[in-house]
Amino acid sequence: MNEQLDPARAATAAEAAPTPSDLANAIRALAMDAVEKAKSGHPGLPMGAADIATVLFTRFMKYDSADPTWADRDRFVFSAGHGSMLLYAILHLTGVEGMTIEELKNFRQLHSKTPGHPENFVTPGVETTTGPLGQGIATAVGMALAERMLAAEYGDDIVDHHTWVLASDGDLMEGISHEAIAFAGNLKLNKLVVLWDDNGISIDGPLSLSDTTDQCKRFEACGWRTIRVDGHDQAALARALSRAKKSDRPTMIACKTTIGFGAPTRAGTSKAHGEPLGAEELAGAKQALGWGYAPFEIPAAIKKAWEKAGRKGRSARKAWEQRFQALPAETRADLERRLAGIPPKALGEAIAAHKRALVESPAAAATRKASEAVLNAIAPAVPELVAGSADLTPSNNVKVKTSVPVKPGDFAGRYVHYGIREHGMAAAMNGIALHGGFRPAGATFLVFTDYARPSMRIAALAGIPAIYVMTHDSIGLGEDGPTHQPVEHLAALRAMPNLRVFRPADAVETAECWQLALERTDGPSVLALTRQNLAPSRTTHSDANLCETGAYELSPAQGGAAKATIFATGSEVEIALAAQALLAERGIASRVVSTPSLDLFLAQPEDVRSRIVGDAPIRAAIEAGVRFGWDAVIGDDGVFVGMQSFGASAPYKQLYEHFGITAQALADKITARHNG
Amino acid sequence: MNEQLDPARAATAAEAAPTPSDLANAIRALAMDAVEKAKSGHPGLPMGAADIATVLFTRFMKYDSADPTWADRDRFVFSAGHGSMLLYAILHLTGVEGMTIEELKNFRQLHSKTPGHPENFVTPGVETTTGPLGQGIATAVGMALAERMLAAEYGDDIVDHHTWVLASDGDLMEGISHEAIAFAGNLKLNKLVVLWDDNGISIDGPLSLSDTTDQCKRFEACGWRTIRVDGHDQAALARALSRAKKSDRPTMIACKTTIGFGAPTRAGTSKAHGEPLGAEELAGAKQALGWGYAPFEIPAAIKKAWEKAGRKGRSARKAWEQRFQALPAETRADLERRLAGIPPKALGEAIAAHKRALVESPAAAATRKASEAVLNAIAPAVPELVAGSADLTPSNNVKVKTSVPVKPGDFAGRYVHYGIREHGMAAAMNGIALHGGFRPAGATFLVFTDYARPSMRIAALAGIPAIYVMTHDSIGLGEDGPTHQPVEHLAALRAMPNLRVFRPADAVETAECWQLALERTDGPSVLALTRQNLAPSRTTHSDANLCETGAYELSPAQGGAAKATIFATGSEVEIALAAQALLAERGIASRVVSTPSLDLFLAQPEDVRSRIVGDAPIRAAIEAGVRFGWDAVIGDDGVFVGMQSFGASAPYKQLYEHFGITAQALADKITARHNG
Repeated sequence: MNEQLDPARAATAAEAAPTPSDLANAIRALAMDAVEKAKSGHPGLPMGAADIATVLFTRFMKYDSADPTWADRDRFVFSAGHGSMLLYAILHLTGVEGMTIEELKNFRQLHSKTPGHPENFVTPGVETTTGPLGQGIATAVGMALAERMLAAEYGDDIVDHHTWVLASDGDLMEGISHEAIAFAGNLKLNKLVVLWDDNGISIDGPLSLSDTTDQCKRFEACGWRTIRVDGHDQAALARALSRAKKSDRPTMIACKTTIGFGAPTRAGTSKAHGEPLGAEELAGAKQALGWGYAPFEIPAAIKKAWEKAGRKGRSARKAWEQRFQALPAETRADLERRLAGIPPKALGEAIAAHKRALVESPAAAATRKASEAVLNAIAPAVPELVAGSADLTPSNNVKVKTSVPVKPGDFAGRYVHYGIREHGMAAAMNGIALHGGFRPAGATFLVFTDYARPSMRIAALAGIPAIYVMTHDSIGLGEDGPTHQPVEHLAALRAMPNLRVFRPADAVETAECWQLALERTDGPSVLALTRQNLAPSRTTHSDANLCETGAYELSPAQGGAAKATIFATGSEVEIALAAQALLAERGIASRVVSTPSLDLFLAQPEDVRSRIVGDAPIRAAIEAGVRFGWDAVIGDDGVFVGMQSFGASAPYKQLYEHFGITAQALADKITARHNG
Repeated sequence: MNEQLDPARAATAAEAAPTPSDLANAIRALAMDAVEKAKSGHPGLPMGAADIATVLFTRFMKYDSADPTWADRDRFVFSAGHGSMLLYAILHLTGVEGMTIEELKNFRQLHSKTPGHPENFVTPGVETTTGPLGQGIATAVGMALAERMLAAEYGDDIVDHHTWVLASDGDLMEGISHEAIAFAGNLKLNKLVVLWDDNGISIDGPLSLSDTTDQCKRFEACGWRTIRVDGHDQAALARALSRAKKSDRPTMIACKTTIGFGAPTRAGTSKAHGEPLGAEELAGAKQALGWGYAPFEIPAAIKKAWEKAGRKGRSARKAWEQRFQALPAETRADLERRLAGIPPKALGEAIAAHKRALVESPAAAATRKASEAVLNAIAPAVPELVAGSADLTPSNNVKVKTSVPVKPGDFAGRYVHYGIREHGMAAAMNGIALHGGFRPAGATFLVFTDYARPSMRIAALAGIPAIYVMTHDSIGLGEDGPTHQPVEHLAALRAMPNLRVFRPADAVETAECWQLALERTDGPSVLALTRQNLAPSRTTHSDANLCETGAYELSPAQGGAAKATIFATGSEVEIALAAQALLAERGIASRVVSTPSLDLFLAQPEDVRSRIVGDAPIRAAIEAGVRFGWDAVIGDDGVFVGMQSFGASAPYKQLYEHFGITAQALADKITARHNG
C-alpha cells in the first residue's frame, strides 16, 4: 500500500519527522482547502502532481525563496496553470515573502496574490502567466534558449540554470506544443525538462475520447529524450530528474499520475478536475491521505521542512552574487541594465543620427526595408536585441548585416530561425523577454498575427515588451491574394489592451516607431510594415519623435482654414497627401494628420487629442483596412476610404484602384461632403 | 539517369505516346510559364510534386473533370496552397470547364480563376481555400470525418470516397497540424491519406535550420501508418498509394522530392520556392526536362492523356448517380437539401414553438443553458447538425439529450469530442461543412477564439457557414481570471469581414440568434454566450425574429421623448434596463436598444439604422468589453460603459462592481451628460 494512502499512519509521525509524502500531502491539503473555500478552482492537478512538485522543489530546483527573482535561478514554468494552487502552495510553504496563508485563504478573490490562474505580474515567484493551454511549455522553450544565449555571452559562471516545466495533457494537445517541442528539439536545448502530468483524464472524460497519442514517441521524433516514471514514486521521480539533468538534449518525463490523488470517489476521474471536492469528499481525501489537520493548518515540522527546501539554493545564490560582483564594472553594469529591461542610453542618439541621414538622402523605400536600415543603424547600440523570423527571413528584413543565427549547441548568435511557427515564436519571445537579458523581435506577415494571437495576448496582459515585426501589411502585398492580405488585423490588434500597433508611413516614421517600441518597457508592440515602396513623407529633420503622440499634423492646410482633416496611416499617407493636393486644386483647404499609432493616439490626454484632431468641419480617414475603430477619431459620420471586404489576388496598384483606395476617391468623397 | 532529366529524349516521343513523366512535365512547364508571365508565384513546389500529383490524378483519384463537385468524388486538398499552379495546371489539363489556358496565362491577375492561392469560391475544382499553412491538412481531417459520418447514415453505396492531401514541410511545422494529426489518428480515419512533399527546403534555407523532426515517427506516434517513397518514382508512388488505400488507419506517405525539380541551378534550393525562375533558368529547366515547347504549349497527345485521366471517374460517377436516384424519394430529397446546404423548413416552426414556450414560463438562465435548450428543441428538425466541443463539454452545453459521440470506427454519432484543439476544431468544421451534408457547430470559451482565428478567417473568406458556440463570454465568468476573460474578442471578431457575431441577452434572443446562424448559408457565425444567469428581457412572444436587424428597440422611452438611447448586448441588457429605471426616477426618459449583433446592425440599410438609432440627444452603450468599434453607433462623443483593461480573478458580481459596469455607473454618466 502506498504510504500516502495509509490512514492508519499516525498524524504525529508527520509532525516528528516528515516524509517526502507528508510534504506532498501538504500541497494536496492546501489545494483542497483553498478551492473549497473559494468555491471555485481545480483540485485535481495539485493532488495528482504533488509528488512531482515535491521532488522538484525539495531536491532539484536551484531556488531561494528569499529571492525568487535571482537571475540565475532555475525556472519553474507551470504550464498547467489551472492547477495554480499547487504553485501557490509551494510559494507559501517555501516561505516566499508575501505569500501568507491569508493569501491562500483568499484564493481567486479580488486583489489577492492568488488569482485563478498564475500571473507573474501579480504573484512573487510566478515565472510566467499561464492558463491558456500550451503557452507555458512554449514560453519555457524561449527561457531555455535565452539561458543558453546569455551563457554564451557571459559564461557559465554567470548563467547556468535549468528550465523545468510541469505540463498537462491539454498542454500537449494544443498545436503550439508541437511548434515548441520541434523547435527545442532541433536546437538541442538540453537544460529544458518537461514533466508531463500523465493522468489520462481531460474535462470531457477519459483522454482516450479524443487522444491516444504516444507522447514519448512523439517527443523522441522531435529530438527529445524521454523517460517514463510512476508519478507517485518520489524515489523513481528523483532518478528520472537526475538523468534528465545529464541529458544532451531536452527531456520529457512522462509521470503517470492519478488526478485528484487521494479523493475517495473522484480520484482518476474528470470530476476531480475543475470543481471543489465538497465537504464529504474532502474529508474522505484527508482521511485517505492520513492528513488529520484543520483547513489551512500545516504542522510546524512540515512547514519547517518545506522552508528548508526553499533555502536549498541560498548558498548557490550567494556564491553567484560574488561571481557577479566580480565581473568587470562595465560588463556588470550593462548586464544589470539588460536584466532590468532598461533600454540602452545610446539608442536615442543612434535613431536621431539615422533620421538625419534619411532626410539628407531621401529615397522611396518599403517600410520593411526602412526597418532593416533602422536595425542596421541601431544594432551596435542594442546588444540585447534578438531578432528572428517564422521562416520569412528574406521577406521580413529583420536579419541584418551583423546577424548570426543561433544553432544547435552554438548560442552565440542573436538571430533565430523560428521555422514556420508563428505561435511558437510569439510564445518563445515571451520566454526570452521574461528570462531577462534580451529584447525579442520576431517577424512574419501581418496576416499571420492570427496564428500568434494567444501568445501576443499573454504579452499584453503580462506587460512583456516583445516586438512583432509584421510585414506585408495590406492588400499592398499584391498577388498572394486574400489569404495573405490583412484587412481586419490592424483593428483586431488595436482592440487588444496594452498592445501598441505602429504603422509608419516612411523611413523616418519607421525609425521613430522602432524607437518607441524599443523604449517601451511595459508591453508589446506591433510594427506593421509594407512590402511596397513608399515615398518619403517626412522630408525635414526633427529631433523630436513626432510619432510619440500616435498622430501628428504632417501637412498643414494651405490657403485658409482647413475644411477637412485627413487621418492616414502607413502606405496611405502618401495617398492622403495626394488627395490634399487634389482638394487644393478644387479650392478646398485640408490638413493631413499622419497616424502611425491609432491606439497610442486614443490613449493621449483629451487636450492633446483635440489639438491634433483640430476643428475642421469634415473628418476623414484613409487606411487599407476596415473602418472598424476609426469612428473614434472621425466620428460615426466621418468620411472613410478603406476596405469593406477581403482582398484579391492581383498586382497591388490594380488592387488599390479596384478597391477604390485612391487619392481621387478620397478627394471626391470629401468634396461631395463639402458641397453637400 | 532519370528519364525525365534526359534532354536527348526526342520531344516527338512524348507526342506519340506520352509517358507518366511527360504528364508530370506538363504540370511543371505550365507552372514555370505561368509564374514567369505573372512575374510572381511559386514554381518550386509544382515542379517538385508533379510526379506525386500525376500518379494521384491519373491512377487513383475518383474524379470526373466534367463534374468536379459530384458528391461522392475523392477530395484532393492542396494544403501547400502556395504551389497553386500545380492545381490549376491539373484542372486545365483534365479539362474542367472554364479552366482554359487563358486562365493560366492570367495567373494571379484580377478577376482570373487563378488567384495566388487556391480559393474554392473562385475556382471550379478547388476543394478548399489554402495558403495559410496547416489549414489544408486540418480541413481535410474534417472532410474525412464527414465522409464517414455521412456513410454511416446513408451507406457506402452513396458515400464512399477518399480524402487526399498534398502537404508541405510548412504544413507539418504549423501547430495546427499536430491537432489535426492526433485527432484523425484517434478516430482512425483510414480513408485519409497525406502525401508529404518532403523536399527538405523552406524559405530560410535547408529545413534543418529550424526543423529536424522525424515526421514518420511523429505520425506513427499519433496512430498513423507511414510509408517512405521516392517522390519522383511514379511506380513506387503508385505502390504506396495502393497500400494507403487498404490501410485501417490514416496514412502519411513521405515523398522525398527535389524542390524545383529540373531547374539547373535552383533545384533543391530555397531559390526555387517563391519567385519566377527567370528566362535563362526556365529555358535550362525545360531543356533538362526534355520539354521543347513554347510557353503554355501542351502537345495534343499529352493533353489527350490528361483529359482521359480527367474522365477516369466518369463511369463511377454515373453508376453512383443511378444508385442515388434509386434512393427512396424522401431520403433523396433530404440528402439533396443537405448537400446543397439549404436549411431545413422545419427549423422556423421549431424556433417559434420554443420561443412561445419560453415566454410562457419565463426563468432566469445563462445563455449557454438557453442555447442547450434551443438545441434540444431543434435537434429533430436539423439532422445535419454536428455539434462538438474542444474538451469543454460540461461547460459549453452543446451536447444535448440525443447527442451520441463519434468514436473510432463508429461514425453514427453526431457529437464530436475535438479534444483541447480549438484551432484543429475550427479547421475540421470547415472541412465538415465543405464536404457537404452537415452543419458544424463547435464550442469552446470565447477567449479561445484567439486559438482558432486563422481557421475562422478561412470560413469567413470562403463563405463557410460554421457556427462557433463561444461560452464564458466576458468577465462574467468570474474566478478564472484575465487569461480566460474575453475583453477585446467581440471587437476583434466584429472586425472580420463576413463573420456574424451574436451576443443574445436572454433565452428568447438566444433562440433567435441560433435561427439566424442556422439560416445563414454564406458565412460563419459566432454565438457569444454567458456563464452566468440572466433575467428574461423578452417577456412577450413575437413571431418575428427581432434579432434579424442586429438591434431593435427593446424598451421604449416612458413619459416623454427619449433623452438618451442605450445600446446594450448580452448580459449587459439587464443592466441597461435597470439604468433606464434609475434614469426614469431622475426624470430622464431613455430607451434601450438591444443589440444582439453589432456587425449585422451596421450592415443594415441607412434608413433601418437611423430608425433604430433614433434621435435622442445622448447615445450610450454598455458592454463588458472594450469600446473599440462602438463609436460607429454612439459617435466618438457617445457615453460608454465597459472594459478599459484586462479583467481580474474574483466572483463575477464583484468584478462588475470593480470595473464599474453597473446600472448606477451608466445612469450617472448619462445624467451627467444630460445635465452638463
